[in-house]
Amino acid sequence: MTVYNHVSFLTDYGLEDGFVAACHGVAARIAPAASIIDITHLVQPGDVRRGAAVLAQTVHYLPPAVHVAVVDPGVGTARRAVAVAAGESILVGPDNGLLSWAIDALGGGRLAVQLTNGDLWLHPVSATFQGRDIFMPVGAHLAAGTELADAGDEIGLDELTVLPAPTSRLHDGSAEGEVMSVDRFGNVQLSIPAADAGRLGIGIGSPVVVRCGRRQLTVPYLDTFAAGAPGEIIAFTDSAGLISLAINAGDAAQQLGLPPGAHVRLSQAHAK
Amino acid sequence: MTVYNHVSFLTDYGLEDGFVAACHGVAARIAPAASIIDITHLVQPGDVRRGAAVLAQTVHYLPPAVHVAVVDPGVGTARRAVAVAAGESILVGPDNGLLSWAIDALGGGRLAVQLTNGDLWLHPVSATFQGRDIFMPVGAHLAAGTELADAGDEIGLDELTVLPAPTSRLHDGSAEGEVMSVDRFGNVQLSIPAADAGRLGIGIGSPVVVRCGRRQLTVPYLDTFAAGAPGEIIAFTDSAGLISLAINAGDAAQQLGLPPGAHVRLSQAHAK
Amino acid sequence: MTVYNHVSFLTDYGLEDGFVAACHGVAARIAPAASIIDITHLVQPGDVRRGAAVLAQTVHYLPPAVHVAVVDPGVGTARRAVAVAAGESILVGPDNGLLSWAIDALGGGRLAVQLTNGDLWLHPVSATFQGRDIFMPVGAHLAAGTELADAGDEIGLDELTVLPAPTSRLHDGSAEGEVMSVDRFGNVQLSIPAADAGRLGIGIGSPVVVRCGRRQLTVPYLDTFAAGAPGEIIAFTDSAGLISLAINAGDAAQQLGLPPGAHVRLSQAHAK
Repeated sequence: MTVYNHVSFLTDYGLEDGFVAACHGVAARIAPAASIIDITHLVQPGDVRRGAAVLAQTVHYLPPAVHVAVVDPGVGTARRAVAVAAGESILVGPDNGLLSWAIDALGGGRLAVQLTNGDLWLHPVSATFQGRDIFMPVGAHLAAGTELADAGDEIGLDELTVLPAPTSRLHDGSAEGEVMSVDRFGNVQLSIPAADAGRLGIGIGSPVVVRCGRRQLTVPYLDTFAAGAPGEIIAFTDSAGLISLAINAGDAAQQLGLPPGAHVRLSQAHAK
Repeated sequence: MTVYNHVSFLTDYGLEDGFVAACHGVAARIAPAASIIDITHLVQPGDVRRGAAVLAQTVHYLPPAVHVAVVDPGVGTARRAVAVAAGESILVGPDNGLLSWAIDALGGGRLAVQLTNGDLWLHPVSATFQGRDIFMPVGAHLAAGTELADAGDEIGLDELTVLPAPTSRLHDGSAEGEVMSVDRFGNVQLSIPAADAGRLGIGIGSPVVVRCGRRQLTVPYLDTFAAGAPGEIIAFTDSAGLISLAINAGDAAQQLGLPPGAHVRLSQAHAK
Repeated sequence: MTVYNHVSFLTDYGLEDGFVAACHGVAARIAPAASIIDITHLVQPGDVRRGAAVLAQTVHYLPPAVHVAVVDPGVGTARRAVAVAAGESILVGPDNGLLSWAIDALGGGRLAVQLTNGDLWLHPVSATFQGRDIFMPVGAHLAAGTELADAGDEIGLDELTVLPAPTSRLHDGSAEGEVMSVDRFGNVQLSIPAADAGRLGIGIGSPVVVRCGRRQLTVPYLDTFAAGAPGEIIAFTDSAGLISLAINAGDAAQQLGLPPGAHVRLSQAHAK
């Protein structure tokens, strides 16, 4: 029997209502010894890609845990509810791709189960709040020692819904990618790994050419945004190992007009 | 001696300041073994009705606990501070009606005490931050085993301030009610219980006529907002058992212009 | 060996991303027995003074703890990372003044160490997320019993960066100060201690003349904002012992146009 001391929790429930607390309460009843680490509850409503990205970039830093994630615009419809063992952890959530990048980040799935064992649920099950009635109770039972296989019927790992990975490719001397996310500081995270940029000769200390939309600018590639002059746009390797654009003490996303999904191309700046 | 493992906490303090943390710290000193479940701290400043609704709809899902709630526009004035035993829990807060719906949700009060025992308070008592200096210290002492009767002078349960319940009545073939709350998704929760609507023949799968202000529209009554077509307004039974209006992947409150308190009438749609 | 049951945590990371949770996860791995009290993560990005004020006003109410604070616009540059013993606690953060007011609030520093012992860090160390890779891991190790002296090289307490204190002086019958902060309720906290005002004969129940910019108004000095008439501007002693301006059920900061840093002068109102 595996017992988990931690349950992590990511949703788009927001913090204004009692939704998150109701789930905490349900977990506290079922798995009183487990402590909950809230990842975020401010994913934009229904933004599965954003939820998947935050989960995947955070999960590596959490202790082995049952990771419960609910960004579920299809709640109450035929989409499956699943639990997936990956690494030393178990992920629980809707089978809409939300978990898929985190499963990869944890080294790939080992066992997947469709949540069909209603004995682990809270009844009556609301059609619209399955975080409270299915995902968290199941997650808490798993944390308290219930075997994953007892949560429902095993399904093939290849049957799980996978979210298309953010595009990133090396092409014609450029690294092409998209804006993964914009953080609170206005830093623009690209889908381009620093390692890939390095293969093109784009390295710390050298200037890099950034093309987005009709704009083209040459910015320094520095260790940290704080190394830029105030107001200067720079590129740096962020804490997830991805190339990001930032302005020291400013909001790069706003100034560059780069929302999530926008296409960006990086290349080495050559002396003329 | 009853010891509680959990203290829940609901306020309008917001999350930008250190107010909530100061209360957490006070509780950690007095009741180190109790863990705190934050319900929400984003009640609009002074909105006692909203605080009461969130508390009442959440408390059922929490473990037995001392529930500390502070939405207290009259802080420092003559309004009483009280603690009330209800169900297996104790509620602590200002006697302004904030606790009243939760008391009902827990099955009614068993014993009420006016908080007059200053030995349980933090001194000096601030006139404006009694969450830190009275409510949380008293709540933490109660969680740690202090008897409710030792928190102050018993008062009659019928002396407690009761918030007028949201209006909801069946009248002339219609279910009349008001907007209880609007959640993060823009879903509009009405004060009309699904059971009452059912008595009028309004049931899942059938169309329902919604009248609000001068508008009248006929919408399907579905299991879940996700069952609606994108952009379609629908009615559903929400996770609190109340009829709600929603738009799949949209903001119903905004589109319908329905703020909390707005009057709404539902009736069965008849074939002409 | 000193073990701390609590780690407090204050940042400008926001709650939309997984930054705070990653730090929680790192702490849970290193110091599983310590529980984390989040002070706030909504300090405006890079606003070191605001972070310092919230930390200093909250820390007194927390149990002895390792207080980890990260508002760090110079992350990844040459600014030092430090840990400072003060009172029964240890503060950990960048040496940019963020900790300085809290050190004073705890009774002054006893020992300061520059964080140079990389054995306590998480590797590889990101240049831009040292909360995750340096400050929290070091804080968690200190909570779990690592001696402060083992975190790095001792430095003189007088070498620590100190943030200039908010101005407050008695001058020519007036108490002059500045706006310290504006809370969620729109209450305007001044840097003028109630005790100083008292020395000028400004006391509860008496009118006080407020001068800010070209405006001058006379307001009552009351016990609590709730004692004011609706819409009335009043002065009161806030929960930190500072004079504050408020409007009962209104937003004083907005109505008076007083942002943090604005200069304000108070004096006794004299009968003509």
